Amino acid sequence: KVDGDRLWDSLMEMAKIGPGIAGGNNRQALTDEDGEGRKLFQSWCEEAGMVMSVDQMGNMFFRHEGAEPELEPVYIGSHLDTQPTGGKYDGVLGVLAGLEVIRSIRNLGITTRRPIVVTNWTNEEGTRFAPAMLASGVFAGVIDQDFAYGRRDAKGKSFGEELARIGWMGDEKPGDRKIHAMFEYHIEQGPILEAEDVQIGVVTHGQGLRWIECTVTGKGQHTGSTPMRMRRNAGRGLAQLTELVHEIAMRHQPAAVGAIGHIDVYPNSRNIIPERVVFTIDFRSHLMPTLLEMVEEFTSKAPAICEALGCEFSHEIVGHFDPPAFDAALVDRVRSAADRLGYSHMDIISGAGHDACWVNKVAPTVMIMCPCVDGLSHNEAEEISPEWASAGTDVLLHAVLETAEI
Amino acid sequence: KVDGDRLWDSLMEMAKIGPGIAGGNNRQALTDEDGEGRKLFQSWCEEAGMVMSVDQMGNMFFRHEGAEPELEPVYIGSHLDTQPTGGKYDGVLGVLAGLEVIRSIRNLGITTRRPIVVTNWTNEEGTRFAPAMLASGVFAGVIDQDFAYGRRDAKGKSFGEELARIGWMGDEKPGDRKIHAMFEYHIEQGPILEAEDVQIGVVTHGQGLRWIECTVTGKGQHTGSTPMRMRRNAGRGLAQLTELVHEIAMRHQPAAVGAIGHIDVYPNSRNIIPERVVFTIDFRSHLMPTLLEMVEEFTSKAPAICEALGCEFSHEIVGHFDPPAFDAALVDRVRSAADRLGYSHMDIISGAGHDACWVNKVAPTVMIMCPCVDGLSHNEAEEISPEWASAGTDVLLHAVLETAEI
Ligand SMILES: NC(=O)NCCC(=O)O
Ligand SMILES: NC(=O)NCCC(=O)O
Repeated sequence: KVDGDRLWDSLMEMAKIGPGIAGGNNRQALTDEDGEGRKLFQSWCEEAGMVMSVDQMGNMFFRHEGAEPELEPVYIGSHLDTQPTGGKYDGVLGVLAGLEVIRSIRNLGITTRRPIVVTNWTNEEGTRFAPAMLASGVFAGVIDQDFAYGRRDAKGKSFGEELARIGWMGDEKPGDRKIHAMFEYHIEQGPILEAEDVQIGVVTHGQGLRWIECTVTGKGQHTGSTPMRMRRNAGRGLAQLTELVHEIAMRHQPAAVGAIGHIDVYPNSRNIIPERVVFTIDFRSHLMPTLLEMVEEFTSKAPAICEALGCEFSHEIVGHFDPPAFDAALVDRVRSAADRLGYSHMDIISGAGHDACWVNKVAPTVMIMCPCVDGLSHNEAEEISPEWASAGTDVLLHAVLETAEI
Repeated sequence: KVDGDRLWDSLMEMAKIGPGIAGGNNRQALTDEDGEGRKLFQSWCEEAGMVMSVDQMGNMFFRHEGAEPELEPVYIGSHLDTQPTGGKYDGVLGVLAGLEVIRSIRNLGITTRRPIVVTNWTNEEGTRFAPAMLASGVFAGVIDQDFAYGRRDAKGKSFGEELARIGWMGDEKPGDRKIHAMFEYHIEQGPILEAEDVQIGVVTHGQGLRWIECTVTGKGQHTGSTPMRMRRNAGRGLAQLTELVHEIAMRHQPAAVGAIGHIDVYPNSRNIIPERVVFTIDFRSHLMPTLLEMVEEFTSKAPAICEALGCEFSHEIVGHFDPPAFDAALVDRVRSAADRLGYSHMDIISGAGHDACWVNKVAPTVMIMCPCVDGLSHNEAEEISPEWASAGTDVLLHAVLETAEI
């Protein structure tokens, strides 16, 4: 078993970097705080005898050597970046659990045949630079590197500029690595494991996702002196499309979800009718036909709804991945590790997207999940217990050791 | 008649300060640009022989002396601040028309018994610091000066700090002046005069207004992993309340209007269900009972709508004025000046709020309006013709001369 206290101490230490305003974290991708978090992680990994490589997307790889260095390594990874109002565990747990696995292996004096590589994937959250899982997407060859470099935050700064600015643009070409298997350990970010009182989620599938950035354009006019019948109020477009997204998702739930999280109103003045509203829809399902149906229904109905309001509608897909099915052999290995350790477990579908969803395209991949309080995530109040954190790390240790061959 | 070319040249000169991005202006209250606009206006007024006073709200008063200095002066005023995406005429026309009246009187060698004071009222638009007409409201004794100083912009800067910073906090106590009569000349900001092909609007009444700042609070949760049935989506509160505002206003139109122009979403991330939405409703009517009915219907229905979504609702009135009726004798004087000059005219109700609405509380007040293209205002594309601008200024000159007694 791993050292649960050491793991927890590291989590609390990392959470001091980029503190939020309500107990969580604001350590968004490629900010100064992200740079600081990376340095701390580097120092810990090097203390644990690992050797760093960094690729051109800022992905960090720490190699713990195996008895047979020429064998393809086993990877453990997740992300250190957070939402603007994020928790202390989303992503961070999976990275620091990887470090804890290596620390435990060294303490126990175990040698594996295969090398083990602990990874921090850049810009998983996608808040500052859409889409989410940007750097693992480039690594897996599904997102173009130049496209990624050109992604801009709300202030107009590009991913490429900011990566160089914080000093984490490496030389290695993204994807230029062989992966024998990749494990990602993550908090559930949903309510199921806690409700079922189960310690370990064995992730068999994930939801696919489409992010649809919509623009409704009306006319910016005076709220006082423009007669009601002359208005072209883009805010009403937002209102009716918000409800349409909800209705569509409700018709497909529990196999799907949908909501609008991001909304920008222009010019956003109390006495100007909204001229333009830009917002992003997040539709997800673990069933590919359902996902496509939802997008199709929305994009076919939205233009007429806006037209009836005298507004124009346009849209662009700014994030997408198809529902992944994780590697069956690795899924089995996680399940039997949990059994062996005596932890309660169940199969689940990941509601969120993860770097593992992209890596799964280029290598056998699997995820392990632990519960989180009230299913709450992407919120500073996100919470887990030290026992939950270490139980999943124990399972990770066993499944990784089996895969890395002792 | 006034010199229409000189008036137009001054309008175009002022429009160079704080240019917008689409041909209009962004010269919001108490920005550096506002300070620059004030300096230019000061230099013009002093060239025209007027003497400046500034009060503690930054209201600027330029006095043109009368033959009997002890008589109460006649005022002409409006505002030089603009919307973030504002036009070149909203407010500015009324201030520079006042200057043009003085320039014309001097050129014609006319002496009036009463002094004439040309005024620039601070922060009329209310975009940066709510509510609108803040400084004329303090002048009229309906808004508390300390409350006004404490109003904050979106970046947290206060009105008091910013007024001092740009160097326009004067010594005079606001309201410490006797006003014999006040004239405000303004573009209509609505479509009626243009549609009726009439040159002059004689403003008999104005709409009253209530700005209701609403907060809907739900729960910020992960958009992917939170089941549909567990959501408390504040964005749906916004959606349903947007439509409620529209329905209420439609039931009372054409005697009322209503819309939401300002919306802020927190934390505004693509993969977080909106935790909180703050937005401001603008309800208006020239009928007091209608105005109160609309507010009452909205505030009584909104909490239950939000509760049904698992959200909480709260609200605060952040701007208000009751429907003003302008001074009947001054209204007559404007009407007969237009007649005398041979300009077509009609009585209208002002859809927008104006500094004149507050000054009307403490002195006989009236407004004159000219058409604007397509009724478009609070938009960089706001447009008027030089002929429209000078026709209204001619009427202003005649009505002012009669009131200031030649
Ligand atoms: N795990 C996680 O929250 N990832 C961000 C991408 C997503 O929205 O699912
Ligand atoms: N005239 C004008 O647009 N004033 C701003 C206050 C209002 O919204 O009516």
